[in-house]
Amino acid sequence: MPVFLSAQEPDFEDRFAALLAAKREADADVDEAAARILADVRARGVDALIELTERFDRLRLTPETLAFSEEEIDRAVARVPPEERAALELAAERIAAYHRRQLPRDESWTDRAGATLGWRWTPVDSAGLYVPGGLASYPSSVLMNAIPARVAGVRRLTMCAPTPDGQVNPLVLLAARLAGVDEVFRVGGAQAIGALTWGAGPIRPADKIVGPGNAWVAAAKRRVFGTVGIDMIAGPSEILIIADGAQNPDWIALDLLSQAEHDESAQAILITDDPAFARAAAAAVEARLATLERREIARASWRDFGAVIVARDLDHAAELSDRVAPEHLELCVADPDALAAKVRHAGAIFLGAWTPEAIGDYVGGPNHVLPTARSARFSSGLSVLDFMKRTTIARMSPGALAAIGPAARTLAQSESLEAHSLSVAARLEALNRGAEGEE
Amino acid sequence: MPVFLSAQEPDFEDRFAALLAAKREADADVDEAAARILADVRARGVDALIELTERFDRLRLTPETLAFSEEEIDRAVARVPPEERAALELAAERIAAYHRRQLPRDESWTDRAGATLGWRWTPVDSAGLYVPGGLASYPSSVLMNAIPARVAGVRRLTMCAPTPDGQVNPLVLLAARLAGVDEVFRVGGAQAIGALTWGAGPIRPADKIVGPGNAWVAAAKRRVFGTVGIDMIAGPSEILIIADGAQNPDWIALDLLSQAEHDESAQAILITDDPAFARAAAAAVEARLATLERREIARASWRDFGAVIVARDLDHAAELSDRVAPEHLELCVADPDALAAKVRHAGAIFLGAWTPEAIGDYVGGPNHVLPTARSARFSSGLSVLDFMKRTTIARMSPGALAAIGPAARTLAQSESLEAHSLSVAARLEALNRGAEGEE
Repeated sequence: MPVFLSAQEPDFEDRFAALLAAKREADADVDEAAARILADVRARGVDALIELTERFDRLRLTPETLAFSEEEIDRAVARVPPEERAALELAAERIAAYHRRQLPRDESWTDRAGATLGWRWTPVDSAGLYVPGGLASYPSSVLMNAIPARVAGVRRLTMCAPTPDGQVNPLVLLAARLAGVDEVFRVGGAQAIGALTWGAGPIRPADKIVGPGNAWVAAAKRRVFGTVGIDMIAGPSEILIIADGAQNPDWIALDLLSQAEHDESAQAILITDDPAFARAAAAAVEARLATLERREIARASWRDFGAVIVARDLDHAAELSDRVAPEHLELCVADPDALAAKVRHAGAIFLGAWTPEAIGDYVGGPNHVLPTARSARFSSGLSVLDFMKRTTIARMSPGALAAIGPAARTLAQSESLEAHSLSVAARLEALNRGAEGEE
Repeated sequence: MPVFLSAQEPDFEDRFAALLAAKREADADVDEAAARILADVRARGVDALIELTERFDRLRLTPETLAFSEEEIDRAVARVPPEERAALELAAERIAAYHRRQLPRDESWTDRAGATLGWRWTPVDSAGLYVPGGLASYPSSVLMNAIPARVAGVRRLTMCAPTPDGQVNPLVLLAARLAGVDEVFRVGGAQAIGALTWGAGPIRPADKIVGPGNAWVAAAKRRVFGTVGIDMIAGPSEILIIADGAQNPDWIALDLLSQAEHDESAQAILITDDPAFARAAAAAVEARLATLERREIARASWRDFGAVIVARDLDHAAELSDRVAPEHLELCVADPDALAAKVRHAGAIFLGAWTPEAIGDYVGGPNHVLPTARSARFSSGLSVLDFMKRTTIARMSPGALAAIGPAARTLAQSESLEAHSLSVAARLEALNRGAEGEE
């Protein structure tokens, strides 16, 4: 059974704090193993990559067969049923339309001192997209990771995905093609992260590596962070739903379960101001669990990490939600806009009963790569900005240097950086000589 | 002597590649030591903090004396000479004015399907600012780290700075006050990062930790990344100057040395299209090195990592610069705007001979916390956005759900996520029943 909490009970605060502190993922101690694999790929390049792929994926590759050929992709893509292709195309279109609006603007202005200031955004040259194999190999994730890179203007977009025993999901290849991925390699794990960082055979180094992965992939990304850019270290996923008593309990139950079915360490939390609705929704979850295909996983998640919380009122619900800082937040209440205005920390907000979170996973438009495990306190979902960087620009006129240069000299001297001070002073002296010459 | 390269020589490409690959920083193997300190602070809180501060900074504190009191700050600040105070105030004003322009806009729109989409930016609740002690304790860095946080709207801004043997730089405290820092603690090293991550005594946990530090601080930040947000892992700093033959060699020499004097692993590179200017600038560096206060440091940096490169022409210079992706780029040429348009990767660009890089360190306005060690390929300098996060928003009308829901169902089914599919289907069925009812 999930945790039931009521704000009426005296131990509410302690129990809510315990829920927040609960650890949802075992520490997989794979850091050393990931480090060894990275060092091996860095030192031996494509040879290491091929050996590791044989060991982990039972697949014997050569430098020539590391990449999917265009013909292989053509053949796989041709097997996708038209309905699935159409759905993927609609998703790709909507995701691209949303992300195009994220393209940032350059700025430039001249201030009163005569300094021209501003900044300019440019895309990274190349991005590497990691796609997990097996169960977690989602075509929707390919779209969500690749499209923002393409919209940003990334020149080369490389995808790595393990194909254990040679198995591949044709929809993943179709998604890669729709999203404009340039090359797809059949490698996974920490070895793929190493190849994308330092290059290995046909795999060239990327400037930025994004995409979800298992514990080895996460450990490898943490280690190469700084040599290349990375997106984030993804943890177990969560949904928080704030619902009033007027909602359909079955809809809310399905939304909770659509998180719980992802994996056993996923978390689904319902907060309501109506104790009767809390009971009805919990009962609806049990009813749906009886027949759900992935009921084993969903039941474990709901039992171990699920929570049903009766708050004092909807304002209190928003406060509690901010302490969770959920990845996904559904506001199924009469006035969701008013409630959303009170929320400060959430990866994505879904407003009203007609917006199940699953819409956001596929076709809504916003990105489904979102900050997990309370990191919405300080980070954002994946966006076009993750594939761009900003260069600041400054240009002093002689007058601007005369106006603000002396303060720079003073500060450089106070920091004992003489060359800094002299670099300004030499120019100021030239200006003074010029001014004297004019007199 | 620094490296001299000419594009005319047959081994140019190899030697330039070697320059790019040169390692400028010894691997300090402090990761385990940092991990032990973090674990200690996490487990024992303020007791560990006090013990570690006694051991590393030879300073015996209590939970009550960990923070500077307002009176202590008042007394320190009163000792700052008026000229330095005025310079710091001018810098703070200009930095704030520049960063206020970075405040992002929220967006919201309704598309043809009837989906209302958008996003909203909110500040992080709390930020921790690390300030190194000793030589690297720069008041300008306090302004550069704290002001963007304040402009973003961060509610609580906590600063940690070690005070070895009780020593403190009054200008650092004045900068903290001018920038609106809320509290200042006398702790440093990995232990300060632990305290800012999990809290320790009077130090409360922060959501985001920024600021430069030594190898222990960098290792600790890398380890807590994910539990809190961090800015970047700073490496040794560099400048690249592209200058034509019409420049003043002494000015360029001083600009090169203003990077070299920072520390022995700093890097200063001059690229010019004029061999005679290359020789003149190198001679000017030697002349200035004879008398520079920090000549020991600057000479070691220039000797070990300095480079003077004669490019085929200015376009070639821009190409080479992009391969370096320098932290600081000065364009001292007749038409710096035209050349800047050809540059893709740089942390900050300084245009024209009247804009020495030192202006950007203090009073220009743009941030001086910039991506080092080639990371301008994928990352940006510190900005207001580092202290904010974006929540995506989606709201479906019933019509929008009817239009795009079926595609979401199809994709959920193809990913074998039944609850996802059912959460959409249950609502679509209600819509269909409604439509039938109307018939």
